Amino acid sequence: MESENKMTKNIVDRLYEKMDERQTQLMIGLDPNLSLFPEHILQEAVREHGRTYLAAASAIKEFNFAIIDATADLVPIFKPQSAYYEQYGIEGIRTLEETVAYAQEKGALVCLDAKRNDIGSTSRAYAEAHLGKVLLPDGTTMTSPDNVDFMTVNGYLGSDGINPFIEVADKEDKGIFILAKTSNPSSGELQDLRVDDHPIYIRMARLIRELGQNIGESGYSNVGAVVGATYPAEAKRLREILPHTLFLMPGYGAQGAKAEILVNGFDEEGRGAVVNSSRGITFAFSNEDFRKKYPNVAIPEKFAEAARLATIDSIIDINHSLKDANKLPSNWFI
Amino acid sequence: MESENKMTKNIVDRLYEKMDERQTQLMIGLDPNLSLFPEHILQEAVREHGRTYLAAASAIKEFNFAIIDATADLVPIFKPQSAYYEQYGIEGIRTLEETVAYAQEKGALVCLDAKRNDIGSTSRAYAEAHLGKVLLPDGTTMTSPDNVDFMTVNGYLGSDGINPFIEVADKEDKGIFILAKTSNPSSGELQDLRVDDHPIYIRMARLIRELGQNIGESGYSNVGAVVGATYPAEAKRLREILPHTLFLMPGYGAQGAKAEILVNGFDEEGRGAVVNSSRGITFAFSNEDFRKKYPNVAIPEKFAEAARLATIDSIIDINHSLKDANKLPSNWFI
Repeated sequence: MESENKMTKNIVDRLYEKMDERQTQLMIGLDPNLSLFPEHILQEAVREHGRTYLAAASAIKEFNFAIIDATADLVPIFKPQSAYYEQYGIEGIRTLEETVAYAQEKGALVCLDAKRNDIGSTSRAYAEAHLGKVLLPDGTTMTSPDNVDFMTVNGYLGSDGINPFIEVADKEDKGIFILAKTSNPSSGELQDLRVDDHPIYIRMARLIRELGQNIGESGYSNVGAVVGATYPAEAKRLREILPHTLFLMPGYGAQGAKAEILVNGFDEEGRGAVVNSSRGITFAFSNEDFRKKYPNVAIPEKFAEAARLATIDSIIDINHSLKDANKLPSNWFI
Repeated sequence: MESENKMTKNIVDRLYEKMDERQTQLMIGLDPNLSLFPEHILQEAVREHGRTYLAAASAIKEFNFAIIDATADLVPIFKPQSAYYEQYGIEGIRTLEETVAYAQEKGALVCLDAKRNDIGSTSRAYAEAHLGKVLLPDGTTMTSPDNVDFMTVNGYLGSDGINPFIEVADKEDKGIFILAKTSNPSSGELQDLRVDDHPIYIRMARLIRELGQNIGESGYSNVGAVVGATYPAEAKRLREILPHTLFLMPGYGAQGAKAEILVNGFDEEGRGAVVNSSRGITFAFSNEDFRKKYPNVAIPEKFAEAARLATIDSIIDINHSLKDANKLPSNWFI
């Protein structure tokens, strides 16, 4: 299969350009859970829009835009989590579309965390909905409303459910991340079951490797894998058997994974992984550890400044751990 | 665990009331793929709204409402497939919400086929987004914008990803269907892998059984399973080990599963399964077999009448097969 690899630039190369500019592989997750929001943003939304979905959506928009303004020069990519926008119907989806466009305008890429999955024609519809072009009644197509750069996919239905996502990603020069080993405590209930002496997540990894034949100049395919940072031994093993697969690693920060174990997901040159942090950055203002370090910034009114400081700290933390493991990319500084 | 079962009415009992009224367990899938639409609906949408997402959404609305008008007295439940609505952003989501509300107004239940999945707090956000109540900035909650009766869930992340869906379903008296054995050709790549001599879909089934402790008067839990009608041997085996689990069976009709094999998914009293048909009903007007039988109705202008005839034929077909297997519910006629 190696001979079929296309060695042209792909979306991962463009991601690496942004990573090199910013000298980090940190991704910021935008999971706008209102119960964690600064009070003044909620109050303003209620004043302007009362008790409506629009009030929720406008609070989310104000929050997200402020976070993006404060951090888009620091990180190469943002990851909005679809659930928090779907909650508010059309108003929520409008805010998702605006958030995606705003992050892209500011020079970042966007991965929609949607974990979509279905069979053939429906998987294609999902892929076109978020990565591609959608069919209009006159028979022409139009760029999809959110038009993100990457999306996450759940592979439980097998290759004929995954291939339509890859076909659309290849055609539109986009990428996907397929769930392999997720970061949650019960991920092992299914994913760790052993088949012929190998856990399921390894079987899923082999499928990801087999399907990921569009490999760019960086050596990485546009078909990546979600690998929980909370499982360092599994990440190490997956790194070994997936030399061309970019990892999206959730679990850093709020879920408890430390930078020194994250490095397991990186290759010898310090490439091959994107590390996500959501709450740890966006809600840093209310985080206990953050408050101890920055008591004057750990207030709701300074949530964006807090997010910027938490981003810088996270970048330094991850890069230090890469350096300690002799894996900091050669053209990066600390 | 049996002692923990709550023997009060649940959503499945309400579904069975509607099934008994209509004497069928047929579900109609609303997968509005524009490439299969009647030409006159597309042309009208272009005339009114030009080359826009709104044109697509208004074509879908006209189509769906006509299908619901033509069939809501015949079937107990509709299943819109989220992907086809997500494609058109806010306009598509508005049409989804309107479709759900219209079907419910007409006396049917609605299952959103969304196959959502995530970890803890995000799974809860998905569940609240579609089955429950969502948080507003003033701290109160409001019924979610689409507020369906059931939704489909992918269980690859294990129980801590599934439990929030069940908690919300229990609280709101709703139901979920978790993917066990899907109907597509490659479903076996992961789902059939053997662990300790049992395939993965059986392990998923055991998890579904264990989590489904809210059992209604019908004997069925509000935590159901998706079991492809295209795999009759697997359906038979799952029926044996899941006596309290309602099956959502896709694959009848366009995907090739015949009624005589579907009966494997039903219990001895002819209960325990909902059979979905999407294209075979909604696009019956362009189906070859349908055209042979009803040449005068198999035209785009009569798509709704065609859907009604195809629905009646499907109901008779399934009920005949149940009768042949001595499984027709005792108070139903043929």
